[in-house]
Amino acid sequence: MSDHEAARGRFIVFEGGEGVGKSTQARLLANALRATGLAVDLTREPGGTPGAEAIRALLLDAGGSDWGPRAEALLFAAARSDHVEKLIMPALETGRWVVCDRFIDSSRAYQGAAGGMCDDDILALHRIGSAGLLPDLTIVLRLEPQATQTRLRARDGDASDRIGGRAPEYHAAVASAFEGFAAAEPARFVIVEASGEAEEVHGRVMIALKRFEHGR
Amino acid sequence: MSDHEAARGRFIVFEGGEGVGKSTQARLLANALRATGLAVDLTREPGGTPGAEAIRALLLDAGGSDWGPRAEALLFAAARSDHVEKLIMPALETGRWVVCDRFIDSSRAYQGAAGGMCDDDILALHRIGSAGLLPDLTIVLRLEPQATQTRLRARDGDASDRIGGRAPEYHAAVASAFEGFAAAEPARFVIVEASGEAEEVHGRVMIALKRFEHGR
Ligand SMILES: Nc1ncnc2c1ncn2[C@@H]1O[C@H](COP(=O)(O)OP(=O)(O)OP(=O)(O)O)[C@@H](O)[C@H]1O
Ligand SMILES: Nc1ncnc2c1ncn2[C@@H]1O[C@H](COP(=O)(O)OP(=O)(O)OP(=O)(O)O)[C@@H](O)[C@H]1O
Ligand SMILES: [Mg+2]
Ligand SMILES: [Mg+2]
Repeated sequence: MSDHEAARGRFIVFEGGEGVGKSTQARLLANALRATGLAVDLTREPGGTPGAEAIRALLLDAGGSDWGPRAEALLFAAARSDHVEKLIMPALETGRWVVCDRFIDSSRAYQGAAGGMCDDDILALHRIGSAGLLPDLTIVLRLEPQATQTRLRARDGDASDRIGGRAPEYHAAVASAFEGFAAAEPARFVIVEASGEAEEVHGRVMIALKRFEHGR
Repeated sequence: MSDHEAARGRFIVFEGGEGVGKSTQARLLANALRATGLAVDLTREPGGTPGAEAIRALLLDAGGSDWGPRAEALLFAAARSDHVEKLIMPALETGRWVVCDRFIDSSRAYQGAAGGMCDDDILALHRIGSAGLLPDLTIVLRLEPQATQTRLRARDGDASDRIGGRAPEYHAAVASAFEGFAAAEPARFVIVEASGEAEEVHGRVMIALKRFEHGR
């Protein structure tokens, strides 16, 4: 690399089931990294660009179309393609860090493991749509279902979007899928216990990130 | 097949560039088949179901997102998946005929040949999204660019949607792609000359269909 090129930024993703604290921790991490002087983009999936946010509305509106798992997987892949092309890759290439709330492993967990599509098909869509881009580090937040329910009820009351409103077995399948991905690819994943105060969880995230940076 | 099951209906698709007369001929064919007593669904792509029509709006709105070819291909595949699952397959399985204005070969021509994606990737999306369903017969309407322009100017004046408004080379690549597909798979395709009055073209379509049915 020449002295004039910026080093490529890092791409860090939070994953986990509904209500485990992904959005909260993504925000805390982005702020902590900014405080060290890094340029950081905080973003989320599905969404992150105007086109992808329009697809998000098609996917999550409770009154929207009842998509089958295949159409749903294609829509997530389309939103991700737009997000990667217009926001994530340009940021990383100019040295910015990207902290993202959900990414490809959510599709593998929700449409794949819990939704019945095979992992190879989900990964094929990602290869075709987004050149197979993977995060440098994926932080899976783990929280027992009881604690998750308490947090979600405090946040949403009885409201729930189309995917969040599915059966408990679906959410259990999602949680165990993330653990399986992490076990299969330890270099790209770290599992962080998400119980306790948000600042306490954030402390664990920072320790995990420092270990990861040290091991590079 | 038992006597109590309906025979599977036929799936007939019109393809070709903008303004060659696909919608006109699809309507005339559906009416002619109905007049013989067949149950016929006339439909179009992208669209045909409420979900797919919502995706169509994202794709074709001139003021919408400027999708890259990959996101665009995924959106078309998502719309097609919904259309196949909810309308086309249920119709065919209960013995109805389906006449459709554009289908998979439009994705191969527009996002593939003219848009730069490889044909294998387009076909992979179709396998994942729609179990690779192919039409029984694909009728490619061929019309010289000059005649096409005259028809489109009479219909639209200066208005044009986001895809129709692209450069002439793009449309030439599309037209020659359809000819290539037809040459590669003669059993699934017939090319029909689309010049002359609409009823005259319809007469050629009926002859092509009778030959196809005779050859089955
Ligand atoms: N450590 C924590 N302790 C208590 N409450 C928390 C903690 N972290 C987050 N919360 C609260 O729990 C709720 C869920 O957190 P958050 O929205 O960050 O989860 P999420 O994983 O992003 O959920 P979703 O999957 O629905 O987007 C929010 O109301 C948030 O303020
Ligand atoms: N044989 C014909 N002779 C003259 N005009 C025709 C003929 N067939 C169709 N038209 C007219 O030409 C215009 C284009 O036809 P049509 O809309 O059926 O084409 P299309 O292939 O469906 O176009 P698009 O790709 O834009 O959907 C319409 O205004 C239609 O009424
Ligand atoms: Mg969240
Ligand atoms: Mg038409």
